[in-house]
Amino acid sequence: MALVNPHGGGSLKPLLLEGNALKTELARAQSLPKLKVSSREAGDIIMLGIGGFTPLDGFMTHGDWEGVCDGMKMANGLFWPIPVTLSTNDESIKAGSEIALVDGETGEILATMKVTEKYGIDKAHECMEVYKTTDLEHPGVKMVMAQGKHNLAGPIKVLSTGGFKEKYGEQFMTPAETRAKFEQMGWKRVAAFQTRNPMHRSHEYLAKIAIETMDGVLIHSLLGNLKPGDIPAEVRSEAIEVLTKNYFAPNTTIQAGYPLDMRYAGPREALLHALFRQNYGCSHLIVGRDHAGVGDFYGPFDAQKIFDEIPHDALETKNMNIDWTFWCKKCGGMASQRTCPHTKDDRILLSGTKVRSMLSEGQDLPVEFSRPEVAKVLQKYYAGLSAEQNVKVELNGHSAA
Amino acid sequence: MALVNPHGGGSLKPLLLEGNALKTELARAQSLPKLKVSSREAGDIIMLGIGGFTPLDGFMTHGDWEGVCDGMKMANGLFWPIPVTLSTNDESIKAGSEIALVDGETGEILATMKVTEKYGIDKAHECMEVYKTTDLEHPGVKMVMAQGKHNLAGPIKVLSTGGFKEKYGEQFMTPAETRAKFEQMGWKRVAAFQTRNPMHRSHEYLAKIAIETMDGVLIHSLLGNLKPGDIPAEVRSEAIEVLTKNYFAPNTTIQAGYPLDMRYAGPREALLHALFRQNYGCSHLIVGRDHAGVGDFYGPFDAQKIFDEIPHDALETKNMNIDWTFWCKKCGGMASQRTCPHTKDDRILLSGTKVRSMLSEGQDLPVEFSRPEVAKVLQKYYAGLSAEQNVKVELNGHSAA
Repeated sequence: MALVNPHGGGSLKPLLLEGNALKTELARAQSLPKLKVSSREAGDIIMLGIGGFTPLDGFMTHGDWEGVCDGMKMANGLFWPIPVTLSTNDESIKAGSEIALVDGETGEILATMKVTEKYGIDKAHECMEVYKTTDLEHPGVKMVMAQGKHNLAGPIKVLSTGGFKEKYGEQFMTPAETRAKFEQMGWKRVAAFQTRNPMHRSHEYLAKIAIETMDGVLIHSLLGNLKPGDIPAEVRSEAIEVLTKNYFAPNTTIQAGYPLDMRYAGPREALLHALFRQNYGCSHLIVGRDHAGVGDFYGPFDAQKIFDEIPHDALETKNMNIDWTFWCKKCGGMASQRTCPHTKDDRILLSGTKVRSMLSEGQDLPVEFSRPEVAKVLQKYYAGLSAEQNVKVELNGHSAA
Repeated sequence: MALVNPHGGGSLKPLLLEGNALKTELARAQSLPKLKVSSREAGDIIMLGIGGFTPLDGFMTHGDWEGVCDGMKMANGLFWPIPVTLSTNDESIKAGSEIALVDGETGEILATMKVTEKYGIDKAHECMEVYKTTDLEHPGVKMVMAQGKHNLAGPIKVLSTGGFKEKYGEQFMTPAETRAKFEQMGWKRVAAFQTRNPMHRSHEYLAKIAIETMDGVLIHSLLGNLKPGDIPAEVRSEAIEVLTKNYFAPNTTIQAGYPLDMRYAGPREALLHALFRQNYGCSHLIVGRDHAGVGDFYGPFDAQKIFDEIPHDALETKNMNIDWTFWCKKCGGMASQRTCPHTKDDRILLSGTKVRSMLSEGQDLPVEFSRPEVAKVLQKYYAGLSAEQNVKVELNGHSAA
């Protein structure tokens, strides 16, 4: 038995150039018309660069976009749950144009692209199919609605990892690197624990259930952009570090991160999370409560149910569903709604708002809710925020993914 | 997705006659030569009767015996890990004889058999291949060595369930009954928790890990004979009843029992446990520490490793391995060696002898070790034993299976 195959069944397909090819293309890129890309698009480019979106070779065509929206299938039949598209308002870019894609924030050239198709889309249709809503309060919908008028399709050559390697060091692992690491550890059955929040005991429990029955867990943090007020990646990373050091057995976890922005597409994004974890070599994705959700846009277990609705062979990486988890006083231990017969009153449940206010005031969290070492890291972070910033911080205490 | 197929891929094959066929065969059996069978053989007959040993149609031939001992394969190529054989010293029984098989203890006619082959075996060879030892201290080896000189092969017609139904009522479920129950519950992924001991928190934890990720658990108790001093099935059953009632969510467990004696064959028996659980409709067998072992005859995880050594398609029912489990004070919860980084001193570990002496003296067990409701049932049992009996009782505190 070996690791799961990259999506599509072939080899990993990183689009990042190296060595002389990179040098030459970077030089050529200077002279090309430049298109500033959004943060979401930049994350997608880097993901394409490191092979996380294998086997895509660039941004999607209209045929792909339509198939993905309506049936989670690209024009060539490949399973794909969320459009990976690039947009512009620039009328001068046409099919046939060669352009350079530039980070909208830093101005760095991230990639070159040969535009093969320019097309319009019904944004509301994409939102309804993918996000199940056109409500602009939904941050993913807001991103789609803010896109340019035209989508551009075509293969890209990636020229940078956008500073992630520099910023996050060893934690920014490519799919080839996680696969090599898993093989070195002798791991075959590996669960990815997707996280965009610090890990409290409820999240530790999810990861440990996976460890009890598999070879190991990839604690895989989103390093791209989040909602305003979410805990920054470096703080999360430090908190996870003290957690694994003190409460996990050696050689059962690997902490790494990936460059995407959250889309908050709930069920569809859970499928994307599984898809790219397949590229990273993970056999399973832990899917908890309200995975990749936001607000009340999705039912708490919609992201689990959608895995039953896709063809059996769509993905090699499978979902590992776990119910809402908590400490129950009557159970005298961590449990979930699947394993605890008691009532809400017996459980230690703290809202995100409550956790934030306790941490901001330097209060200790109950040891049944959070490990003291983890709480300390978060207290330190909140203590460093100005009072004004503190008000804006909105910590989601229930959902990790 | 449906339940796993019965072993061999066909339908369940219960050999128990019913209605008029049963009546006629019972009448005929009265006039046949009678062969008293051992307790182990009686359990096998009843298991064949209820379809637990599907697709066998009786006791194994020399070719089957040899193939099973040497390569876990019957003459027809079917995977089978432990010989299911009948023996006698009666020289008057020959190939071609029709005989009645009679319970050695109660005298009840359990089955009729058409003897198709009479053959000798090298018992030491069977013991070395199946039990990995010829030490007579091993209770399974002792049974083989105490067998008759000749083995008898041939199809049987089963005429009784040997009083199990009467004694255990609803808890004595046939494979057809557990399958019907799983379907009624809407269960597909079902883990069998094999037990021959009362369930303490370490066992509760094993079962709950399965429940977190599957549809449900069949808590499946051995109802046949055990080593002297093991806790009787009705006491275990009561203890499990109070445990599930107080600490498991509704509709996540089913308690049932099966009629076999323990063979204590460790790894090979774990495979047999998985095989017949496939007939009962379970997709997984929980395999913990020293599964089906006795004394120090097997390494603590040999019964997990053997599942990697059999052909991938040998069984549809897969092993769900879980490491040694306990309460860890530093973790502040249940854990296993896979999930706890701390030391033995941090863990609440009680030897079987210690647990027995505490219960016999009416002492409470630590709540981290055993649920108070469970301890109470066991205290009551020990209080009812005479002092002399109490000395003989040897409770195995580590291994459930």
